[in-house]
Amino acid sequence: MESLIYSIIISFFMALVIGVVIIPMLRRLKFGQQVRDDGPKTHLKKAGTPTMGGIIILIPISIVSVILSKGPLDFTLAAVLVTLGFGIIGFMDDFIKIMKRRSLGLRAYQKLIAQIAIGVVFSFYAYRNIGSSIIVPFTQLEWDLGLLYIPAMTFIIIGTVNSVNFTDGLDGLASGVTLIVAAALSIIAGSMASIMREEGMEYIAANYGNLMVFAGALAGACLGFIRFNAYPAQVFMGDTGSMGLGGAVAALSVLLRIPLLLPIIGGIYMAETLSVIIQVISFRLTGKRVFRMSPLHHHFELSGMGETKVVTMFMIATTLLCLIGLLAV
Amino acid sequence: MESLIYSIIISFFMALVIGVVIIPMLRRLKFGQQVRDDGPKTHLKKAGTPTMGGIIILIPISIVSVILSKGPLDFTLAAVLVTLGFGIIGFMDDFIKIMKRRSLGLRAYQKLIAQIAIGVVFSFYAYRNIGSSIIVPFTQLEWDLGLLYIPAMTFIIIGTVNSVNFTDGLDGLASGVTLIVAAALSIIAGSMASIMREEGMEYIAANYGNLMVFAGALAGACLGFIRFNAYPAQVFMGDTGSMGLGGAVAALSVLLRIPLLLPIIGGIYMAETLSVIIQVISFRLTGKRVFRMSPLHHHFELSGMGETKVVTMFMIATTLLCLIGLLAV
Repeated sequence: MESLIYSIIISFFMALVIGVVIIPMLRRLKFGQQVRDDGPKTHLKKAGTPTMGGIIILIPISIVSVILSKGPLDFTLAAVLVTLGFGIIGFMDDFIKIMKRRSLGLRAYQKLIAQIAIGVVFSFYAYRNIGSSIIVPFTQLEWDLGLLYIPAMTFIIIGTVNSVNFTDGLDGLASGVTLIVAAALSIIAGSMASIMREEGMEYIAANYGNLMVFAGALAGACLGFIRFNAYPAQVFMGDTGSMGLGGAVAALSVLLRIPLLLPIIGGIYMAETLSVIIQVISFRLTGKRVFRMSPLHHHFELSGMGETKVVTMFMIATTLLCLIGLLAV
Repeated sequence: MESLIYSIIISFFMALVIGVVIIPMLRRLKFGQQVRDDGPKTHLKKAGTPTMGGIIILIPISIVSVILSKGPLDFTLAAVLVTLGFGIIGFMDDFIKIMKRRSLGLRAYQKLIAQIAIGVVFSFYAYRNIGSSIIVPFTQLEWDLGLLYIPAMTFIIIGTVNSVNFTDGLDGLASGVTLIVAAALSIIAGSMASIMREEGMEYIAANYGNLMVFAGALAGACLGFIRFNAYPAQVFMGDTGSMGLGGAVAALSVLLRIPLLLPIIGGIYMAETLSVIIQVISFRLTGKRVFRMSPLHHHFELSGMGETKVVTMFMIATTLLCLIGLLAV
């Protein structure tokens, strides 16, 4: 418990310091995002706000989770590598957007290939180290996926990363929701670590204890980032941040064997993605739109709910979903 | 742990239902607060928003904490009575404001007498049941106050209630800060309960377990209230809410023997009150104002920080202070 609190606090302050140093640099380098012209018109005033702020989150996670870990570092390093891997894909995406002054970065197929590569390698690592069975929420059951584990986890990882990416679209939204999800994951990791320790599984217990610290560092970094990202945002996380965060959440849920919990605790990510899918399918099939605009947060915004109110509502929903998730494992 | 989660969730939904029912009633009864004319001018547009929304918080706390309690109910009932007692003082204050259409309600001396009465009775109850020593944060020490315990606790209780009252002045501020403080108090109560149980002190352990549930209900009700109170607020908590919340936080900290932790975890309440005191003293002595306006949140607002940003910053600070507080006991 103490190591969890330290990781949150240290990661928070590290994010603050990095933010203070890096935001003026990003602004000077003209790393202002070309705001997507497919968002609500009121968002056009956001043009010029520097992006790639995800760096403010990714650095503290990587450093704090490694420094504060005790004993075996393998799960932590795997989680850090996945986080940074997706963060780098996002960074390239952001970078190309800025350099080419176009509002879309990497080609879709380029992103997908890179994401699949990381997903497969990490899933294989998990398969080798924790086996192919995952926990079924609200039951005492485990579900052994056999060799299907690798494609299934790859799908879940890529789905999570892109869902967090969709969620990033309002000031403080992706960081606020992920703050709460990370807090829930740290509690789950901590309680799993104690159970493993009681059962004498020292190696997994120590690794899970370190994943608790990793999740704490994730929560602390998000909290620090919100200092700069809350409405009106001084910086956006960019794909650097949203893909990195997605990688961190996905890695944690795979290593803790709770990918089936993600649709619950990450219900907002899920809803954002589903809204996009439903919108596209409906429009192609019937020519009609189900939502005023997708992803979902824009729908609420265009329904007259203020930007900060949508963020608060989504954070309240996530808190509740995470509490339910804590009951499920 | 499970009972804590249930109390948060049930209290949350109860607050939602009560809010949906009661807010239109409050609006129809013209219980719109006369916005204090000593606040920033931009707040004048808030006139007409119904107040006394604290009811939305106080009912779930009272019901959920009693229903979900197991074993001895005495500490829980004491905490509920203190909460409702201060809530009723606040309610009378709000009610007089509305009836007489003046922006200030009860006279200061009337409020103070009622507050002292509740404070003394409750402190005496605590003195009889848990003794006169309190925990000194960051040490293993206890400090025995002897008979000074009663005036000291009374002072702390009244100070807390009025500090939470000062904190209530921006949409979602008092509810958001208290949500986090309540979450921290529930964790502290829960961990103290396990320690007591290990030491064989079953009676206190069971009572502390129930205080954990009480704190959870407090957190859940705040979360539900924020649904309506987030910017732009549909309802204000009024003195009904802020004094009730202050009573709940004070009762918890006295019964858990951690009143000395309040200046840490309730650092925002403290800062709000200190800003008022400093402002008044400075103005009387030197004729100059230290802050653009007190309480503190108005100072930041008038410094150009948006209302929602001030609330977010104060919530981030409270999160950090609560984490430090968790390390201190």
